[in-house]
Amino acid sequence: MKKYNFSAGPSILPKEVFAEAAKAVTDYNGSGLSLMEMSHRGPEFTEILTGARAKIKALMQLGDDYEVLFLQGGASSQFLMVPINILPSNGTAAYVDTGTWSTKAIKEAKLFGGVDVIASSAENGFNYVPKDWTVSDQHSYLHITTNNTIYGTEMHVTPLVDCPLVADMSSDIFSRPWDYDKYDLIYAGAQKNMGPAGTTLVVVKKDLLGKVDRDIPTMLDYNTHIKKESAFNTPPVFPIYVCYLTLQWIEKMGGPKAMAERNRLKAEAIYKAIDESALFEGFSAEEDRSFMNATFTIKDASREKAFVEFCSERGIVGIKGHRSVGGFRASIYNAMDQEGVDALVEAMKEFEKGS
Amino acid sequence: MKKYNFSAGPSILPKEVFAEAAKAVTDYNGSGLSLMEMSHRGPEFTEILTGARAKIKALMQLGDDYEVLFLQGGASSQFLMVPINILPSNGTAAYVDTGTWSTKAIKEAKLFGGVDVIASSAENGFNYVPKDWTVSDQHSYLHITTNNTIYGTEMHVTPLVDCPLVADMSSDIFSRPWDYDKYDLIYAGAQKNMGPAGTTLVVVKKDLLGKVDRDIPTMLDYNTHIKKESAFNTPPVFPIYVCYLTLQWIEKMGGPKAMAERNRLKAEAIYKAIDESALFEGFSAEEDRSFMNATFTIKDASREKAFVEFCSERGIVGIKGHRSVGGFRASIYNAMDQEGVDALVEAMKEFEKGS
Repeated sequence: MKKYNFSAGPSILPKEVFAEAAKAVTDYNGSGLSLMEMSHRGPEFTEILTGARAKIKALMQLGDDYEVLFLQGGASSQFLMVPINILPSNGTAAYVDTGTWSTKAIKEAKLFGGVDVIASSAENGFNYVPKDWTVSDQHSYLHITTNNTIYGTEMHVTPLVDCPLVADMSSDIFSRPWDYDKYDLIYAGAQKNMGPAGTTLVVVKKDLLGKVDRDIPTMLDYNTHIKKESAFNTPPVFPIYVCYLTLQWIEKMGGPKAMAERNRLKAEAIYKAIDESALFEGFSAEEDRSFMNATFTIKDASREKAFVEFCSERGIVGIKGHRSVGGFRASIYNAMDQEGVDALVEAMKEFEKGS
Repeated sequence: MKKYNFSAGPSILPKEVFAEAAKAVTDYNGSGLSLMEMSHRGPEFTEILTGARAKIKALMQLGDDYEVLFLQGGASSQFLMVPINILPSNGTAAYVDTGTWSTKAIKEAKLFGGVDVIASSAENGFNYVPKDWTVSDQHSYLHITTNNTIYGTEMHVTPLVDCPLVADMSSDIFSRPWDYDKYDLIYAGAQKNMGPAGTTLVVVKKDLLGKVDRDIPTMLDYNTHIKKESAFNTPPVFPIYVCYLTLQWIEKMGGPKAMAERNRLKAEAIYKAIDESALFEGFSAEEDRSFMNATFTIKDASREKAFVEFCSERGIVGIKGHRSVGGFRASIYNAMDQEGVDALVEAMKEFEKGS
């Protein structure tokens, strides 16, 4: 039975990426060696790392004032690396709290300086993205989370601000053309639109750094990794390779613009099914609906498990909602195709018909 | 042509591990899904993570007073995580400096408290392991590096000390039966004897923790990861799986005891060839010779490149020495078999004969 994988992350990647990656595990490029046993300073991996970093810049249309790093430790490690690098102890950073991940980022920033939570949608269970806030040029930076996987909310416009702009784009990076050059620092755990778990992308504008006077431990200092072209110590070779394959797939498919069109059609199909249903309800505010994670609940909560099983019998997996929201979550990242979404929509309709 | 890979790390792993890992990239265990697209909270990966953590404890013969974590960031991140977790700001840690990696660990520790470098072999280019030192029960801990990849030196006895004992075992873990229970904290980047690049093993005795009063950022706090059974955030799924396969291979082969016997035979063969040669010379002091990395130089340095090429024509790769030592380094980790070592020894003899 064909599987349709709606997992929130780690999540679906293109089949052809998996096929190519599998080859590299046993014999990379006809070398007779696995990519996993090759030196990270050898020509093969150097080409991969250089290629992946260049591809990121090309897809984001960024210039030489930005640096691209493949680090480790997930977005969770960036929650502390951001403030340790760019929040002076006597400075204040502004954060918009759009749920779990923002909240965790806020907690870490407080260890290093002042934090203004300038807006939060906590009072409504984070089902929308706050828009009514201001930030001043006195803030060290503004931190936002562009897509909130758990709640299925997404920012559809980049805020224009007078201070440096920092974003956690873990779950919607490369899902659309975007004004990446309005951001001073972007980070993203790879395991949604970019690759498998095990590496974290950091894109940073160089002039943002070097302005705090604390002693930053070597591995936590962005400049350490910039100076060594993202190979200060052994990088996570295989996860980076799979990212590179995925980035090449994005390019081949037409880049972020083509992804956005593909993602829009998928999201429209799911939200239409939700809105037309008498059984299912959307969780997030309409104008903030995520194009990556469609969250919805069922009016009769006692039938939640039955719907998950109904889907599972049709090869549809990974649709259980996060425990803090309940219901369902269909993650429709770049690699999910229309066929998968159609299968889900069909299942929703059939399940409702049979109710 | 068959390749013999002597790379220092990332390095050779068993062929059967690569074969099994490749299958999981396209279809994990007949699930129809790649392991890389599966949720890290699902039953499949939970079984892998639990199994790998248990296997580590079994191979080390450790009890429930120890915790096993698969983290990210390499040993380089442990250089700071160790002191931030266990060196009080008014405490002093003892470090033995056996070269590059120890030196880097010392640098990070100084950010968090006092550091006594109680011994160093720097004056002799780190070609031996200092033995003439004492440590007091007033030290917060003693830090050692059991094997020094770059220089080819290895500690063959665990020091008996009155303070907690911490070791970087990145390059000789699981290469021998060892008194792991004499250590309070062990860490190791995976990419030598344990798996591919992308995860770092930390084994910690629980009662060592909770004794510093600084605010530790969440991701740097060992207790964060202990509480969440090494899945606080998304772990590096695929690298951990490949470690698990490698650990199973070690067990199947007879465990650390069988590895030690295998490694001893390989090391003896190489060092014998070095000692019998009029052309090659061993780099490290005889009593401290590493069973993992045999370092040697060539008396006529102008012929270095020629020997590397001579080897390469025979499928022998990865033997160039680290730039700080020069010459050659044959890394003969667990997965390297006697056939590979014999091929290298043969190449050394033939090259010398033709000289």
